[in-house]
Amino acid sequence: MTQHANRPTLAVIAAAAGVSLPTVSKVLNGKQDVAAATRAHVQQVLEQYAYVPLTPRGPTRPLVDVVFTALDSPWGMEILRGVTEADLEVVVTTLSRSSSGDWVRELITGGRQGAIVVTSRLTAADQRRLGGSQLPVVVIDPVDMPGQEVPSVGATNWSGGLAATEHLIELGHRRIAVIGGQEDYLCSRARIDGYRAALDRAGIPFDPALVRHGTFSHEGGHQQARAVLELADRPTAVFAGSDEQAFGVLEAARQARLSVPGDVSVVGFDDLPMARWSSPPLTTVRQPLADMGRMAGRMLHDLITGTRLDTQRVELATQLVVRASTARPS
Amino acid sequence: MTQHANRPTLAVIAAAAGVSLPTVSKVLNGKQDVAAATRAHVQQVLEQYAYVPLTPRGPTRPLVDVVFTALDSPWGMEILRGVTEADLEVVVTTLSRSSSGDWVRELITGGRQGAIVVTSRLTAADQRRLGGSQLPVVVIDPVDMPGQEVPSVGATNWSGGLAATEHLIELGHRRIAVIGGQEDYLCSRARIDGYRAALDRAGIPFDPALVRHGTFSHEGGHQQARAVLELADRPTAVFAGSDEQAFGVLEAARQARLSVPGDVSVVGFDDLPMARWSSPPLTTVRQPLADMGRMAGRMLHDLITGTRLDTQRVELATQLVVRASTARPS
Repeated sequence: MTQHANRPTLAVIAAAAGVSLPTVSKVLNGKQDVAAATRAHVQQVLEQYAYVPLTPRGPTRPLVDVVFTALDSPWGMEILRGVTEADLEVVVTTLSRSSSGDWVRELITGGRQGAIVVTSRLTAADQRRLGGSQLPVVVIDPVDMPGQEVPSVGATNWSGGLAATEHLIELGHRRIAVIGGQEDYLCSRARIDGYRAALDRAGIPFDPALVRHGTFSHEGGHQQARAVLELADRPTAVFAGSDEQAFGVLEAARQARLSVPGDVSVVGFDDLPMARWSSPPLTTVRQPLADMGRMAGRMLHDLITGTRLDTQRVELATQLVVRASTARPS
Repeated sequence: MTQHANRPTLAVIAAAAGVSLPTVSKVLNGKQDVAAATRAHVQQVLEQYAYVPLTPRGPTRPLVDVVFTALDSPWGMEILRGVTEADLEVVVTTLSRSSSGDWVRELITGGRQGAIVVTSRLTAADQRRLGGSQLPVVVIDPVDMPGQEVPSVGATNWSGGLAATEHLIELGHRRIAVIGGQEDYLCSRARIDGYRAALDRAGIPFDPALVRHGTFSHEGGHQQARAVLELADRPTAVFAGSDEQAFGVLEAARQARLSVPGDVSVVGFDDLPMARWSSPPLTTVRQPLADMGRMAGRMLHDLITGTRLDTQRVELATQLVVRASTARPS
């Protein structure tokens, strides 16, 4: 089987290093009465044999699953980065790895000490099953608001929509289009409600023709932007529901020979690392994805160690980041 | 400690479900002589208690580490996606998690069944230590060519540089700048050597003023592109050493009021998911990062199960992907 099936004994290490068994033992236990050269030599032999102490020296971190729908989105990487900064050992898995198709059952009975779930495919029934099990679970929620069965981490989507739209209004825009995600995603609804609130506060009438829905993808943003940029009374600004959608808006503007931000201003949502890399660099609403991952990791650690959670639901603040894709209307 | 410290016994499950112990046992072992409703009820209780069978039903996958310098690059996500498709359980870790600073020792003595290392910080000494240990290790090599001590996976960088440059020459370009990564990265050297080979084959004289080196980052590409686009005899095309650099070139062109591809053509290297999202969509050399991850996973699985590797070094083919950032010179 594996090379580890024949686990080397201390006697084997001692023989290979040409020292006594107590000397190996002293090195392993960090005792001081071993000559430096001998210690270095023994440590080298321990490494060669990939010797793993039966009783680990320090406290070990809990081994937990992090479940993604698929590893195909840059925001997944941001969340994962945050989770790995918590005091956990993180096994990455995707829904497609499920052998039975019942990934919730496999998660619950998989033998890990806990799990963080990052997927829009979490149904209410799934949540009840997770909440009803004894497995410590935290949900990170970029697209929907879970019930109270399972502790969860999200971002302040409504406030983000408000801030993005108020930024455009302050620049002087009056005809502002908004592109949301799928209509049944609550996070998308919250962002658009924030947009409407900003219009209301500024006394700008709401025009349903300027509200579009697409998938949270480049294609979704591109298609919807083509439609609004062809309107006779063209908007001077577009607030996209995700950075990926916003990149699609930039491309639709380029194809329509409209300059950004000269002819049309564009705001995204997420602040993915590549928002700085678009041309022009993207003004966007920062969703603190890595912080959300770190927070979920901390909550899961608390659940595993039996520390009481302060709250079942945490929402981290979004923040407007102004770059070069927004300007006064011409 | 953890909720799993008090592992539920079958007797507890039977009592909670209100059935006999043999009935629970039959459900666990997949026996058919249990009524469907009873089976469903028992399975629900097993889930509630997060019951983990002491003897797992199927063969379990080896638990391995995947080590990144940091989780800050989109190509890391692509590689990880490929690795998780191999028959392994993947624990993600970064160099910054090392508690002692000696991450190689921690990796070797960490108790995993194997490891995949994806970091440019792997020194020759590190490789010797990994190669001299009994821990199965495979290196994925985006930036440097390792020695023969450790099995490794890379991409055909030289051929990629050749293909990118020949594409520009076929379009009619003669003044072609190239931006490489740091001069001591062998992958960067290989790409630039491919560029020189393409010029030679076309009888175009080599101009050292058109060869620049920067970091493999947006900033690196942006800085070097600004320099070459200010030359009196400006190049009509730029081949960047990475997609991230290429995005920096697009931004430098925009700032210089040069249109892409009208005034200057741009080619990248990697084909990150966001290469499709730039405006204009980026012509680039596809490095099959997910395939490289999958291949490394397969090789590691072979090492762990004692299957002989066909070769210590695999290089997967790069491929030119033509999008909208390249055109004939005007």
